[in-house]
Amino acid sequence: MTTGKKLGPNSHDTISSFILTTLLMKTLLIFGVGLIGGSIALKVREKKLYESIIGVARDGGTNLEHLVGSRMLDSVSNNLNEDIKNADFIIIATPVAQIGPILAKIYPYLSKNTLITDVGSTKLDVIHEARAHLKDKFNQFVGSHPIAGSEKHGAIVAQKDLFVNKNIIITNEKEANFNQTKLLSKFWGEMGGIVTIMSANEHDKIFSTVSHLPHLLAFNLVNLINNKKNKGTLLKFAASGFRDFSRIAASSPEMWRDISLANKEAILSDLSLFQNEIATLIKLIELNDNQGLEDYLANASMTRKNWINN
Amino acid sequence: MTTGKKLGPNSHDTISSFILTTLLMKTLLIFGVGLIGGSIALKVREKKLYESIIGVARDGGTNLEHLVGSRMLDSVSNNLNEDIKNADFIIIATPVAQIGPILAKIYPYLSKNTLITDVGSTKLDVIHEARAHLKDKFNQFVGSHPIAGSEKHGAIVAQKDLFVNKNIIITNEKEANFNQTKLLSKFWGEMGGIVTIMSANEHDKIFSTVSHLPHLLAFNLVNLINNKKNKGTLLKFAASGFRDFSRIAASSPEMWRDISLANKEAILSDLSLFQNEIATLIKLIELNDNQGLEDYLANASMTRKNWINN
Repeated sequence: MTTGKKLGPNSHDTISSFILTTLLMKTLLIFGVGLIGGSIALKVREKKLYESIIGVARDGGTNLEHLVGSRMLDSVSNNLNEDIKNADFIIIATPVAQIGPILAKIYPYLSKNTLITDVGSTKLDVIHEARAHLKDKFNQFVGSHPIAGSEKHGAIVAQKDLFVNKNIIITNEKEANFNQTKLLSKFWGEMGGIVTIMSANEHDKIFSTVSHLPHLLAFNLVNLINNKKNKGTLLKFAASGFRDFSRIAASSPEMWRDISLANKEAILSDLSLFQNEIATLIKLIELNDNQGLEDYLANASMTRKNWINN
Repeated sequence: MTTGKKLGPNSHDTISSFILTTLLMKTLLIFGVGLIGGSIALKVREKKLYESIIGVARDGGTNLEHLVGSRMLDSVSNNLNEDIKNADFIIIATPVAQIGPILAKIYPYLSKNTLITDVGSTKLDVIHEARAHLKDKFNQFVGSHPIAGSEKHGAIVAQKDLFVNKNIIITNEKEANFNQTKLLSKFWGEMGGIVTIMSANEHDKIFSTVSHLPHLLAFNLVNLINNKKNKGTLLKFAASGFRDFSRIAASSPEMWRDISLANKEAILSDLSLFQNEIATLIKLIELNDNQGLEDYLANASMTRKNWINN
């Protein structure tokens, strides 16, 4: 597996800044103004990247007027078709399940030079939706995944420096317009992020292993305890090891259901590999293989220690 | 499974305090003065529970003279046989593997009323060693497990309030002298701990599930990544979910090898139950069972959220 070319936050690169300011300077339309959408709005405001930041509430979301009051947004869309038509850049920062319907809604009004991105944590499914709904305009879509999540939700926890020094993945499907990809990369650079470009397929495999798998294992552990008769006693004596390991099991069940199904193939493969790792460990313990067991544990311990020191 | 009676930190209980001060007031001998042994020494000093605190370095440990200089200890043992004979209370706070040899060394010199405990995180193996080495004096031994560990080691990180409001398990084997168990319970109450008495068997089953299992799964996850060709890329994009989940995989390989083998039966059972949980999840994902998957994840999420609120 190869990783695509990396573009740093070259916010002082004159040529690219020129492209950014000439092509993207007028209107930014954000669907879903929560932690991610709100943090983008704050940074765009600080750096004066757009003349106008317009928000659209996610389906089932609260009214956004208070965000105009607080100057996070310039306005809330009250003529969506017109706002789509006039937007230079559209960011869809809603839950992943709403991306398809939003793309379908956008399609009829979309102008030729408008760039569209999302911020979802799976990419193959989003690309699939974009291809289906944007049809001949699919080359205007480039997917994003800013690695800057949190268990906390909502515009109230947004912060302008959320993306500073964070990894941002941009997907490069073969149909994508190169200039659009470059523009998006510049945009995330302006947000302070460290951009890497790769395919949606490679993205989903990587995040299956480093994010989706640990989340699902945390849910597994808590349910193992749920299924024991002495659950109350177990939870009483659970200490810091359990706390850190299982913290991510408090995450949204709906979100993790969607991710599990969206990234089904890679996740099933990783769950199966994890069962193999347990089987290896079981064998070492059953055989009382002192040296083998110590080597197995030391191998992991060394990797983890080196990682944290990076 | 039932959990034994609980004794709170009744440090103002006059009768019990009387027993403690009359029977345990002279000499405390600590084998292994690290985080746990050192924290005990500091609290004993603060509360003036013993006239003399004597330290013995663990096998392969550094010289302890500097701890006399800093007043954590009154002295370092230079006539061990004599110090064993005169000790009112002996605490073995070394790595678990050294407990057997220390008990064998203690046995010939042990006085009739001396209470002995350890602080190991597995209990069946320690009880087994104590029975083998203390023979007719086994009823003077009562095992302890203070739930107050850390990845940090050594007397340098010791703190007098380490045990305040922490759970402390005391094991009650059928041969144990009731007064000795009561004394030990009082002692941990003086340290600020919340004492629960249970059998070594019940202890080991509980800690297999809430501590040993999550640790081993963290090692498994890191090794799954170690075994992938794109290990470097994976570690580059690993974020906060991976960080918290795998933190405990940086723990000592030797210690976790010893724990895995000492608590073999319960750990093998839990690893097998965990494989069943993964199999359940795999099936839900394979079937695209939206509702079943959400229920499974919500069940864990709710338990975890309620736990953290306790």
